[in-house]
Amino acid sequence: MSQDLKNIDELCVNTLRILAIDQVEAANSGHPGLPLGAAAPVYALWSRFLRHNPANPDWSDRDRFILSAGHGSALLYALLHVFGYDLSLEDLKNFRQWGSKTPGHPEYGHTPGVEATTGPLGQGFAMGVGMALAEAHLAAQFNTPEFTVIDHYTYALVSDGDLMEGITSEAASLAGHLGLGKMVYIYDDNKISIEGSTDLTFTENVGARFEAYNWQVLRVADGNDVGALTQAIEQARQETGRPSLIIARTHIGFGSPRQDMAKAHGEPLGAENTRTTKEALGFSPDKSFAVPPEVKAKADETRDKGQAWEDQWQSLIKDYARAQPDKAALLAMYLEGRLPDGWGDEIPVFQPQDGPLATRAASGKVLQGLDARVGNLMGGSADLAPSNKTMLDKREIVKTGEFGGSNIHYGVREHAMGAVVNGMALHGGVIPYGGTFLIFSDYCRPSLRLAALMNVPSKFVFTHDSIGVGEDGPTHQPVEHLMSLRAIPNLTLFRPADANETSAAWRAALGRSGPSVLALTRQKLPILDPEVVAQGAEKGAYVLADSPDPQILLLATGSEVALALQARDALAVKGVLTRVVSMPSWEVFAEQDQAYRDQVIPPDLKPRLAIEAGSTLGWERWTGDKGAVLGLDRFGASAPGAQVFEKLGLTVEAVANKALDLLNGNG
Amino acid sequence: MSQDLKNIDELCVNTLRILAIDQVEAANSGHPGLPLGAAAPVYALWSRFLRHNPANPDWSDRDRFILSAGHGSALLYALLHVFGYDLSLEDLKNFRQWGSKTPGHPEYGHTPGVEATTGPLGQGFAMGVGMALAEAHLAAQFNTPEFTVIDHYTYALVSDGDLMEGITSEAASLAGHLGLGKMVYIYDDNKISIEGSTDLTFTENVGARFEAYNWQVLRVADGNDVGALTQAIEQARQETGRPSLIIARTHIGFGSPRQDMAKAHGEPLGAENTRTTKEALGFSPDKSFAVPPEVKAKADETRDKGQAWEDQWQSLIKDYARAQPDKAALLAMYLEGRLPDGWGDEIPVFQPQDGPLATRAASGKVLQGLDARVGNLMGGSADLAPSNKTMLDKREIVKTGEFGGSNIHYGVREHAMGAVVNGMALHGGVIPYGGTFLIFSDYCRPSLRLAALMNVPSKFVFTHDSIGVGEDGPTHQPVEHLMSLRAIPNLTLFRPADANETSAAWRAALGRSGPSVLALTRQKLPILDPEVVAQGAEKGAYVLADSPDPQILLLATGSEVALALQARDALAVKGVLTRVVSMPSWEVFAEQDQAYRDQVIPPDLKPRLAIEAGSTLGWERWTGDKGAVLGLDRFGASAPGAQVFEKLGLTVEAVANKALDLLNGNG
Repeated sequence: MSQDLKNIDELCVNTLRILAIDQVEAANSGHPGLPLGAAAPVYALWSRFLRHNPANPDWSDRDRFILSAGHGSALLYALLHVFGYDLSLEDLKNFRQWGSKTPGHPEYGHTPGVEATTGPLGQGFAMGVGMALAEAHLAAQFNTPEFTVIDHYTYALVSDGDLMEGITSEAASLAGHLGLGKMVYIYDDNKISIEGSTDLTFTENVGARFEAYNWQVLRVADGNDVGALTQAIEQARQETGRPSLIIARTHIGFGSPRQDMAKAHGEPLGAENTRTTKEALGFSPDKSFAVPPEVKAKADETRDKGQAWEDQWQSLIKDYARAQPDKAALLAMYLEGRLPDGWGDEIPVFQPQDGPLATRAASGKVLQGLDARVGNLMGGSADLAPSNKTMLDKREIVKTGEFGGSNIHYGVREHAMGAVVNGMALHGGVIPYGGTFLIFSDYCRPSLRLAALMNVPSKFVFTHDSIGVGEDGPTHQPVEHLMSLRAIPNLTLFRPADANETSAAWRAALGRSGPSVLALTRQKLPILDPEVVAQGAEKGAYVLADSPDPQILLLATGSEVALALQARDALAVKGVLTRVVSMPSWEVFAEQDQAYRDQVIPPDLKPRLAIEAGSTLGWERWTGDKGAVLGLDRFGASAPGAQVFEKLGLTVEAVANKALDLLNGNG
Repeated sequence: MSQDLKNIDELCVNTLRILAIDQVEAANSGHPGLPLGAAAPVYALWSRFLRHNPANPDWSDRDRFILSAGHGSALLYALLHVFGYDLSLEDLKNFRQWGSKTPGHPEYGHTPGVEATTGPLGQGFAMGVGMALAEAHLAAQFNTPEFTVIDHYTYALVSDGDLMEGITSEAASLAGHLGLGKMVYIYDDNKISIEGSTDLTFTENVGARFEAYNWQVLRVADGNDVGALTQAIEQARQETGRPSLIIARTHIGFGSPRQDMAKAHGEPLGAENTRTTKEALGFSPDKSFAVPPEVKAKADETRDKGQAWEDQWQSLIKDYARAQPDKAALLAMYLEGRLPDGWGDEIPVFQPQDGPLATRAASGKVLQGLDARVGNLMGGSADLAPSNKTMLDKREIVKTGEFGGSNIHYGVREHAMGAVVNGMALHGGVIPYGGTFLIFSDYCRPSLRLAALMNVPSKFVFTHDSIGVGEDGPTHQPVEHLMSLRAIPNLTLFRPADANETSAAWRAALGRSGPSVLALTRQKLPILDPEVVAQGAEKGAYVLADSPDPQILLLATGSEVALALQARDALAVKGVLTRVVSMPSWEVFAEQDQAYRDQVIPPDLKPRLAIEAGSTLGWERWTGDKGAVLGLDRFGASAPGAQVFEKLGLTVEAVANKALDLLNGNG
């Protein structure tokens, strides 16, 4: 490397450092340690390898870069600024302020160039696996010997914290198994965590561990050596059969008086230390947010290169469209996230005589119907496919070197699955889903939350949704899960009452911009009249059975709708007139206008009984002061499912009796 | 090994297999694959090494055995029966039936000899780390050169599924870091998971991975070879500086027509296959639950040995009590789970003039006060100790070979932390706790649920409990977490309003048999009058400020209590009379009698406004039809905390206006 280049590199790296600590100082809040320590590795990557177009952060064939250690956001913002994204110095000065484009942790959809919301450790690492998998899959589907229309890398910067998290272990094992060769991760090996030296708790041999996962592991002894980093990244890119981890020995808080100290991690350096750091790095201590002209040139330079890269690709795509018009049209549709005309035409309509049918089984059938038309569904289960019914019958399995399949064996890795689904959704081009038992939604809850926060259309098939699980017992019977999922903002929970509501739920899920969860039964359920379901299920709640002048409203979801309908019959015998409302989705119902909601739950019809085999907490919202809730505020038990329902008081008789009590004023 | 011994071993192993599949057949539900495959390894362990007393499953110095792969429960029940525990053939015949002692997955507190509830994969693996850590700690504290009063091993059988779960990775890394040498885990390496061969998704080099974690890894090529297994277990026990993993190559469904097939895993073999299996294993196909006399003898034999082991230990303890009366008394108190007289005497009482103080800071002070008297608190944080204030100032740090300390650096491993805390609680002798940010309670949620299901007194310090986190933004600001934790049965959530309520919460937590979570603020809060707090905080909710004839009730928790009090003042200016109720714990309040509850929330005082910086879902329970909730049904945002409160409408003005609206009938 020439001395000039070395000098400009050093200047750029130091500019990134200074821009980062200036942001933290301006906010008097944030994390200076990572930016100071890891500026050189990300600079080496961005300046030498990253193929992107700052003017169009959405260019589909761009390389992805994820700052998995999201607390280093100031570094990412500095990078985005220096490399020409629409992020001004003014934006940087507003770091961590209300309404700014530079929030405390990177937020997808909020800042141009931020590929994923990160901060909760390990999520970025695992989302990258999803991105790389989507890339490999689309490449296998669409590239031809003549046209390499999908061809990009997934890079990430990961930290000690990322590597300690279990989700990372799951994701790394899966990535290694699949041999995702276009993943290049740089480990910011700074030997410091918040409580002090990593020697306090993290002494495993990370390199050996990743080799055991089938990763290529490379080491860079001096994490400030741009040349050595460049060589390592190049070597990582050359390895196409395995993901690569570059262990770069860095120094947290480099150049500051707090270098190699835990204190550097998460608190501002303070005015004095900031001055000292600037001096040490050859910058004027009196200036803030200073970008030397040689560094400023990087922005235009990268924008030019980026536009050229994209232009070249656009031209390739044009040729591709001429040579392979069908494929090109399909690819364009997938990448734009459009659904084909008639996409829902093969979603099955179930007839009552086809039942009873478990909603998980119905979901399996719906998936086949969707797959026949939609084409780019991609998913699977965390080793419960036979139970979750998540397999696409006509598709291949994704394997090392054969990424064209659509069925993913995620393994018993629910947490990574959640993040991989999110990563695929972020990448685009596929409609990703994952499946497990509803009880294990807890295992991937942080990823569900992140899907909601990013508002990406991840889909989750969670079966075995109640004590109806039966013999497997309380460890496998969800109780609090329905309500806990409803509590997550932006997440839509569907708990269909039968096969036709399952069809409606899938149809709705495919139309939503944010994440959806389908909670499905293990046990068989009667099939409702498809015409009645069609009239209301899409609105989240609807009148399933009515009386001219109902005395009481029975409100239920999922498997308990059948219970409500039977109780209605039992009550009719006693001369009690009921209305039964099925409520497959609280969230969708809440989106309807007040008029519709009042039509379904008339404000004057006060005796209301909600029935759901889960936490009663929250149902008062719909039942009100004169209502009651029949649910479960205890753990389940191991016994045949029907018996557990009976023993825990979720029976036709119990519903009817409770309704009578309510009408008699003893609710 | 003599031929006779070999024969009896084989007979015992096959009896365990047959007893297990007979249970599954009787229930027509369950998992035959693991018991058939892994009977020999657990038999080798139980017959040659396990030091326990079947007549007293609670003997404190027993070896622990955890079936981490809890779906193999039929094998554990067979073991417990054959080795003399109070679990009859009748119990086995009631496998998976309502009220039986043999539920679908092992349940702690339900079946004698079951050390932990397992089934959710990885939890057992990680709880074992907690048990081994508690053992090592108590040994360091109480053993003397003359008296080895604490000396037992922690064994587990773990599966492919366990090893794929992230929690296992976290726990293994921690155990290896600490060098917990008395952990001996056997890996049931059967190469099959539910979806098929492990080749589909789990091809990492498990042995190399565990070596990277600093474990001794041993291999037994024939998992049916009791002699080889015995040698490996012995070798594992000899290694005192590292945990050991014995990789035993087994065959799922061994001896059955479904051997080595995924189908063997989780469904009954069926009558015909069961007959074939019995014949293949040398048993009569016409008999069920048959225990040959030579095997029957094992029960008495083990009970005799067990009693002798415990007697010997009791005698040692007597000598110890003579030689070290203080230590012995302390050990007895710890092991019995008693608290010393005056244990709460140094819990601080805070005066208003000491404030404002963040409740996390108050918690830190309370911990020191508790530690001064209680003596056996043991815990720490998932790398956030400086923020969580979880460090015990006067205690050492737990380190390899120096286990006498009480401060644990869990690392960025929230999920393993949750399970390790549970494992310590199950072990007994210590009062364990863990800490992280409330947002990351999601990362350990499956362990929180398990603590609740097992009803063990695990304690969790979750700080940064709202948008008050401020600049770190929505990835770090809990919203749905308070309500989601309240939805878990048996778990008690405390959200104290100030330092004195924090004292009360800790006092209550120490007195509860089940798990407790403390949700604490990052930001400073005014300190309430300690005498007022003392009158009511222990009841979960109480009147903090009142008026002679209040027109409206303001109900709040945590940091929003201060808001309610300020709004009260603002409303007073407008002539509105209020009652302010602080509600640190829903669960504790719900335990109070109706009279007290009606006293605090008078049924006739209908205008009620709840204020909590979290999901509004659920608050209707207390506010009713004429009430309202001021909360957050959206994600937070990155900005200084006070500003986030303001921008998201949680201000004194907003509370007062909402109250006025309610009174004007516009709630």
